[in-house]
Amino acid sequence: MSSMEFSLQYRKYLDDINHEITKLSAVPDVLQKSVFSAMEYGLQGGGKRIRPVLTLAVCEMLGGCYQDALRVACAIECIHNYSLIHDDLPCMDDDAMRRGRPTCHMVFPENIALLAGDGLLNLAFELLSDKSGYTTLSAESILTLICCISRASGAWGMIGGQVIDLESEGRSDVTKERLLALHGRKTGDLIRVSAECGCICAGISDPNSEEYAKIVTFSSKLGLAFQIKDDILDVIGEESRLGKPVGSDQSCEKNTFVTLMGLEGAKEELARLTQEAKDALCGFEKPNFLLALADYLLHRDY
Amino acid sequence: MSSMEFSLQYRKYLDDINHEITKLSAVPDVLQKSVFSAMEYGLQGGGKRIRPVLTLAVCEMLGGCYQDALRVACAIECIHNYSLIHDDLPCMDDDAMRRGRPTCHMVFPENIALLAGDGLLNLAFELLSDKSGYTTLSAESILTLICCISRASGAWGMIGGQVIDLESEGRSDVTKERLLALHGRKTGDLIRVSAECGCICAGISDPNSEEYAKIVTFSSKLGLAFQIKDDILDVIGEESRLGKPVGSDQSCEKNTFVTLMGLEGAKEELARLTQEAKDALCGFEKPNFLLALADYLLHRDY
Repeated sequence: MSSMEFSLQYRKYLDDINHEITKLSAVPDVLQKSVFSAMEYGLQGGGKRIRPVLTLAVCEMLGGCYQDALRVACAIECIHNYSLIHDDLPCMDDDAMRRGRPTCHMVFPENIALLAGDGLLNLAFELLSDKSGYTTLSAESILTLICCISRASGAWGMIGGQVIDLESEGRSDVTKERLLALHGRKTGDLIRVSAECGCICAGISDPNSEEYAKIVTFSSKLGLAFQIKDDILDVIGEESRLGKPVGSDQSCEKNTFVTLMGLEGAKEELARLTQEAKDALCGFEKPNFLLALADYLLHRDY
Repeated sequence: MSSMEFSLQYRKYLDDINHEITKLSAVPDVLQKSVFSAMEYGLQGGGKRIRPVLTLAVCEMLGGCYQDALRVACAIECIHNYSLIHDDLPCMDDDAMRRGRPTCHMVFPENIALLAGDGLLNLAFELLSDKSGYTTLSAESILTLICCISRASGAWGMIGGQVIDLESEGRSDVTKERLLALHGRKTGDLIRVSAECGCICAGISDPNSEEYAKIVTFSSKLGLAFQIKDDILDVIGEESRLGKPVGSDQSCEKNTFVTLMGLEGAKEELARLTQEAKDALCGFEKPNFLLALADYLLHRDY
């Protein structure tokens, strides 16, 4: 797939996702309008939309229903953005900027930001569970989606990773094993489940099937590579492109793959994981977009 | 139903709920164990367990599967307790005591408490969506449950009520209409949906059916009565029984039914709503427990 073809396809996915998200984040004229505005602010923050793009791309590669995958993709993006709002709060990472604009609690009162995060998490499950919003998926498949997603975003998954992260700050004894558990849960689990959902939307929901297992391997490696790239960019990236100060991990004593393995070691690990992710797609008929996506994430500068 | 029969039945429901909750809040030996401990602390705080009791009692009255209702009841209790943890946080009501013991963020770091709330909300949806945990409910019915619950707990429901509450503090122009919207969402929606879930567990999931509509009327009136009683107890209750300081609503300039209608007016409204709730059960074969529950909530002193 040429770089131009990849860009066009990525653009199409982004447009579809953003269009859906604009629809579902419309602010109703109700007494509690402020929380809907804060939810909209969180959702409309842009970003690469990697998770929903993965859902769409995996589903398309496997021949599933695009409209159904789009709904699930947007629900996952709601969960991702709820986690960012909560992550940025004063009692958490206390971040004032994200993606080049003030974080939610800098624009809205802190309690409204907290509740907007809660609101987005509930909204995700409302979107996922509304049977009338789907075209082809069975109730059984929808339940499987909800179960996988809630597990990946809960205390065993993403929330668990956030806890390990908070409790690792300032510690000098963080091992590679702990860092892998931290990021496998904090970033990895939601990225992995985004791809799994693409699979389930295409009617492949047996985790023991060869295709499902390959998608899990691909997305697990990709998620880890994604985090390592983030750590590298925090050291060598340009502030104007990152939308946050360079070196912010170091300033709050975060343990990163760069502090653990050195810059060169992290770069090697990133290249290795990206290659292994791509290798996992061997045997699929139309892996081109996902292969190009892995390379795009490897080379991105923000 | 005699007072003794009611007490025994209530006790049975409580024992079943607490037994399930103890099972599901076991703390696993993982790196992020602290968040599971904080979730357990939140869940094990006791309380009247009104919401899950309603689910069980409505389901039993209508002849549904008790085990399935118990699962749903516990998920709703997870949601209730997540909302309490977040409500008590410093940026929200900043409460140090609840039910006679320190609030979650007084025992755990504030960020762990925040994430424990998030974890309980995710856990609720994980419990609800795991098909293997049910005995008789169809995937369609389970989806209906999840959809009703997420709507009632989200920005249109409970979260919306919390926002109206926060934005009403210190205002002297709060009308009865606004107070009804506030509490209808903040307390009422989750109580109502608890009863609706009992209905759905018994195979009655058409909101337009007579039985379903009666349960909605019953539980909506009961939820409002419950809140008015809380407001009255905040003024005339005993601190040792309430587990929090008497008059704490006034000290943070909350608008309550007592400040709006006076103590006598609030008592009359409470009696009227309780009677209307009971009247809605007319026509059911075995309404005795729910009738007694309404009286119990009317006369409670904590």
